[in-house]
Amino acid sequence: MIDPRTLSGFRDYLPEAMIPRERLIATAQRVYRSFGFSPIDTPALEYLEILTGKGSEETDRQMYHFADQGGRMVGMRFDLTVPLARFVAQHASELGLPFKRYHIATVWRGERAQRGRYREFMQCDFDTIGTKHVAADIETALVIHELLSAIGKSFGGESGKKLGFSIRVNNRMVLSGLLAKLGLAEKSVPILRSLDKLGKIGREKVAEEMAAAAGTTAEQSNQVLSLAELSGTNDEVLLQVEKLVAGNLTGEEGVHRLREILAGATAGGVPADALQVDVSSARGLDYYTGAVFETFLTDLPTIGSICSGGRYDNLASLFTKQELPGIGASLGLDRLLAALEELGLIENVRTPAPVLVVYFDKDQLPAYLKIAQAVRAAGIGAELFPEPKKIGQQLQYADRRGFRIALIAGERELAAGTCQVKDLASKTSAEVPLAVIPAAIAKILAG
Amino acid sequence: MIDPRTLSGFRDYLPEAMIPRERLIATAQRVYRSFGFSPIDTPALEYLEILTGKGSEETDRQMYHFADQGGRMVGMRFDLTVPLARFVAQHASELGLPFKRYHIATVWRGERAQRGRYREFMQCDFDTIGTKHVAADIETALVIHELLSAIGKSFGGESGKKLGFSIRVNNRMVLSGLLAKLGLAEKSVPILRSLDKLGKIGREKVAEEMAAAAGTTAEQSNQVLSLAELSGTNDEVLLQVEKLVAGNLTGEEGVHRLREILAGATAGGVPADALQVDVSSARGLDYYTGAVFETFLTDLPTIGSICSGGRYDNLASLFTKQELPGIGASLGLDRLLAALEELGLIENVRTPAPVLVVYFDKDQLPAYLKIAQAVRAAGIGAELFPEPKKIGQQLQYADRRGFRIALIAGERELAAGTCQVKDLASKTSAEVPLAVIPAAIAKILAG
Repeated sequence: MIDPRTLSGFRDYLPEAMIPRERLIATAQRVYRSFGFSPIDTPALEYLEILTGKGSEETDRQMYHFADQGGRMVGMRFDLTVPLARFVAQHASELGLPFKRYHIATVWRGERAQRGRYREFMQCDFDTIGTKHVAADIETALVIHELLSAIGKSFGGESGKKLGFSIRVNNRMVLSGLLAKLGLAEKSVPILRSLDKLGKIGREKVAEEMAAAAGTTAEQSNQVLSLAELSGTNDEVLLQVEKLVAGNLTGEEGVHRLREILAGATAGGVPADALQVDVSSARGLDYYTGAVFETFLTDLPTIGSICSGGRYDNLASLFTKQELPGIGASLGLDRLLAALEELGLIENVRTPAPVLVVYFDKDQLPAYLKIAQAVRAAGIGAELFPEPKKIGQQLQYADRRGFRIALIAGERELAAGTCQVKDLASKTSAEVPLAVIPAAIAKILAG
Repeated sequence: MIDPRTLSGFRDYLPEAMIPRERLIATAQRVYRSFGFSPIDTPALEYLEILTGKGSEETDRQMYHFADQGGRMVGMRFDLTVPLARFVAQHASELGLPFKRYHIATVWRGERAQRGRYREFMQCDFDTIGTKHVAADIETALVIHELLSAIGKSFGGESGKKLGFSIRVNNRMVLSGLLAKLGLAEKSVPILRSLDKLGKIGREKVAEEMAAAAGTTAEQSNQVLSLAELSGTNDEVLLQVEKLVAGNLTGEEGVHRLREILAGATAGGVPADALQVDVSSARGLDYYTGAVFETFLTDLPTIGSICSGGRYDNLASLFTKQELPGIGASLGLDRLLAALEELGLIENVRTPAPVLVVYFDKDQLPAYLKIAQAVRAAGIGAELFPEPKKIGQQLQYADRRGFRIALIAGERELAAGTCQVKDLASKTSAEVPLAVIPAAIAKILAG
């Protein structure tokens, strides 16, 4: 006998976890498609040299890799960005530019297993490749906003709870411009590293660290910290940023593009308070080169950003000489699911069908099959219990799985052409003619 | 510069392949859910001993396996049945019985790459575990029928073409019963192996082979071949089978259950001619123990069965002492997609959104964002071209991707509060007030 178990860092998805996961994926697909992003998929396994090409030491160490049956060195993808770069370079002429894709797929990282960190997880990315125009930056904000709004409707709708969120937007060019203006363009890496600790160690320590690591003067540190500490309304912040970067073209362009994103988002139907200019965040700024987005849940900000992304200058320099600028973001599916659960927005349901047809009288199987079929024909999911067991056991099964309604018909009801429609929440029951069962169910489901 | 390429036997899914694939997956999910099957997922990687437990030499050789960072021997799943067995054994008490699940996921087999055979492909399984009752057999037939009907509507609908199919049903107990009656119960493996060649080598050679491999007499071979060669209506076939197996309880039970499946399927709304009793097929009969299903496309039978399955006595004997009988089937996603393409049922579309908003006047971005948003708010996908390029280039982009409609508005139209709605199929265009654009689009899309 073999012990049935999963590898450390891996997990099974039981129905109660998989049902909301599939709903979340379907919502993301629907939103991405509505903006014209096309689905793609790439292999889980790639030539190792493709995956290690740009990898840091950390991703290299975490990557699952091995020699396959043909002796080729292969690796399991650890993100969807490297495969995208390879994909676009390989199929450039077929795809044409601009190219907008989404990719929802599993990735693997053999990192140390710990609470909330898994070695197998799903990424949910969308990107627009082949344009530097701010229209794509604006659209990224629109997609993130629509995504979170749609998820709020998919999950919060029934409970009446609202999924509050705010999108923080920054532009890498603002800080780049300020650093250039201060003569610190070459020092951006150590400065960013120090700045990233602002929340933890405070202004003075950061200034000390910057001086030590990047040789900044007190005035230089002061200017950089002033930028990071700006607060107020979007207009207020942008006016102050404008003053700080005045005279530097890159910085001014960054401010201009932030203003365009705000105006465009408003034109695209995003409420004014949903987007917040936040120049304090240094996160990901060493990877991105333009607009940067992060998304936080109002009632659970500590869980971190649940949708992040930004603009990059050149996606696939390792694979092609063609310059491929782009912008994209990634929905943190697993993190968001954990958040929805913590916020009480996920029902504990183990069945995707709301109706259980009880197999009551062992000789009436054809009648039960007909009833279940009639319910399904009305577009309502209906499961027929697969054997004639005691009614108590079947109702227990229904309760345990979260069915909303049980249909019960014995010899008497079937002879009379009726059926008991039992609301499993209110425990009330009504005898209904067979022909109107779907209507009676719809009424209960509508609340 | 690294050469961008995929491993032999692996493939990228470009939008024109991924769009129908996602539609097929969504259709399968919808049908499975409507019958109360719940989604689950399991890890791509499992302990090697879990995967090799029951494997044949062939699957062992084909399996991708390696030592992970922690020195554990792990393998990539090569089907969804072994993981299901492990899953049910591991979570039996949480899941409860009966347990109905579907699982749509990627599997890997390092077999020799050849045309139409890939090393990475998707399986799409549904199973009911924990009951021997014929109601689950009937439901399997209903699910297969609904699945193919729904796929026909999803893909054939617009073209008016119909996806014809027939489901062949058999029961392992019929042949088992006959063999037992003939005193050949112990010889079923070599007999099945010979019988499987009937179509290729003919009756006489099969009889010779059976005699050589299983020591059958001429009369024994004759009886077995008579069973395999039965034809006619379902009633005719079952009457003849009944005579052949008469006196053997297993064989009689097999006939009885076949009759119950036919009657139940009719009660469940399946047309009488959709299910055909076919006792000739020996396929999979060494794995299954009861009902067996295969599904063939009327206009492309040579592609083989596109949905197959059957009943088994005990799913997880390697992992638990609990007896877990069940029944299930698997939709051959990739084979079916290839068939749909061959039958001309897949449109060549590379965009999931039907509408392209042309970015015409470079200063009117907010107006275009508003138009695109209004179309999406009406539930219609709309992509805004992400930069102001020549209109010809944008229309070329629209053509190449298969957009149905382009919305074009210059300064004049926007000042007048209108927009050109261009039907890209008929090449006709109409100027429409902004407020009624969604209605004008809906009319074109409705054909």
